[in-house]
Amino acid sequence: MSAQPNFSWACRVYWEDTDAGGVVYYANYLKFMERCRTEWLRSLGIDQRRLRDERGVQFAVVDMTIAYRKAARLDDEIAVTATLERLGGATIEFSQSVRRAEAILVEASVRVACIDSMKMTACAIPKDLFEEWRSGQ
Amino acid sequence: MSAQPNFSWACRVYWEDTDAGGVVYYANYLKFMERCRTEWLRSLGIDQRRLRDERGVQFAVVDMTIAYRKAARLDDEIAVTATLERLGGATIEFSQSVRRAEAILVEASVRVACIDSMKMTACAIPKDLFEEWRSGQ
Amino acid sequence: MSAQPNFSWACRVYWEDTDAGGVVYYANYLKFMERCRTEWLRSLGIDQRRLRDERGVQFAVVDMTIAYRKAARLDDEIAVTATLERLGGATIEFSQSVRRAEAILVEASVRVACIDSMKMTACAIPKDLFEEWRSGQ
Amino acid sequence: MSAQPNFSWACRVYWEDTDAGGVVYYANYLKFMERCRTEWLRSLGIDQRRLRDERGVQFAVVDMTIAYRKAARLDDEIAVTATLERLGGATIEFSQSVRRAEAILVEASVRVACIDSMKMTACAIPKDLFEEWRSGQ
Repeated sequence: MSAQPNFSWACRVYWEDTDAGGVVYYANYLKFMERCRTEWLRSLGIDQRRLRDERGVQFAVVDMTIAYRKAARLDDEIAVTATLERLGGATIEFSQSVRRAEAILVEASVRVACIDSMKMTACAIPKDLFEEWRSGQ
Repeated sequence: MSAQPNFSWACRVYWEDTDAGGVVYYANYLKFMERCRTEWLRSLGIDQRRLRDERGVQFAVVDMTIAYRKAARLDDEIAVTATLERLGGATIEFSQSVRRAEAILVEASVRVACIDSMKMTACAIPKDLFEEWRSGQ
Repeated sequence: MSAQPNFSWACRVYWEDTDAGGVVYYANYLKFMERCRTEWLRSLGIDQRRLRDERGVQFAVVDMTIAYRKAARLDDEIAVTATLERLGGATIEFSQSVRRAEAILVEASVRVACIDSMKMTACAIPKDLFEEWRSGQ
Repeated sequence: MSAQPNFSWACRVYWEDTDAGGVVYYANYLKFMERCRTEWLRSLGIDQRRLRDERGVQFAVVDMTIAYRKAARLDDEIAVTATLERLGGATIEFSQSVRRAEAILVEASVRVACIDSMKMTACAIPKDLFEEWRSGQ
């Protein structure tokens, strides 16, 4: 699926993102990746707050693999990407990366599940969202 | 009210708390102070999750003044204190500090309001909690 | 000094910024305000990483007063402002706010000091930066 | 290596750890896991700040796999575990978990590398630390 166009979201590294090692704290790349998935959803017209309030579903990461290759530093401009790799009935699989210019800093594979907001258990992705993504592939 | 006994809560500084300046990021002292207020409530038998679920109220900081005197660093053991300074019908005022051994790193004055969880507006502190704190003063 | 033009920086509220109360966690507004001060410096051509590496100085908040008026929520678009209120030999005073459309959510007064990166003690703001800001007032 | 005794570290879930979904934000489990690895090192007499200042080395996560099974909530008491799975010349492999009573909430496999603090490149784990861990296995 390498022909799949990436969605890319620009972020800036601020003091809040760094640690005393002088680089971005390892957990904070997950924030950047989540911002990118959120903006990808928004670019498809999907508002997560409304999704939860009106339809009672939300998304949650169920598993991920992440490789840290190079460190981002204070003031770096980074690009975070998300590519839809697989779409199941209840889960979505992304490959994601964090880049600085040509360098790949972080690579990840992230599986997200659709969750019933009340029961906090997995549920099917609403049909209409599902269709939109299928056709978008 | 300086005779008031302080409540004190020990915290350790981890990588997550620091920034590229090599010290604790300024916003993160507010986390330490909130942990201390939470543990003070817990020491009085007050469980915030139940308070919200069963009685529909929660607490929120409405204003604070904070002075950063010395920096905490990675691996420091710090003590966070909270002293109840004033108890109103809808607000509680604390003085708080962050210390490392004898040194005062941070001092703050924090005003917390009781909030109706549904309407997200200020409301009276439930009578029984109020009484417990009054008698505790 | 109300004629002073504000510097404004747009931020989006993501999951990372919120807490179980459904709103932005109170410490996280300090991150938004720091991003705005950083971008204000950048807009003046001042790169904090170079400032530290080449001239051995950095900035640190020494005290602040903050009032939380209304809560920001997931997906909100907010504007963070910074206005230079006073410029001393070693400190800079800002008034800052966080807004959502016309509503003021948070207001703060923040005093920042110039710090010798090695000794971690207060020092004079480098002359040339000082001049630039003076003339900018 | 399942006979390997686990190292376990207790943590409490505070407001700062949660998000508007009402549960712990997915990136924040990485903070809990890093606290546990830090305390495991400390239990072996290894102080990371001194390691960096005196010997110029630090540790950094190079890759990890993480599965989110159940969510932790505000006020939960959780136990974070770390088990040394493999010790190479320059890397250490842990299996980690986050538990609440008998329930396993999160499971992860984490590979940490020894890093030269100046060059920020991988380097051999100092011989004496290495020996201590080998004998500890």
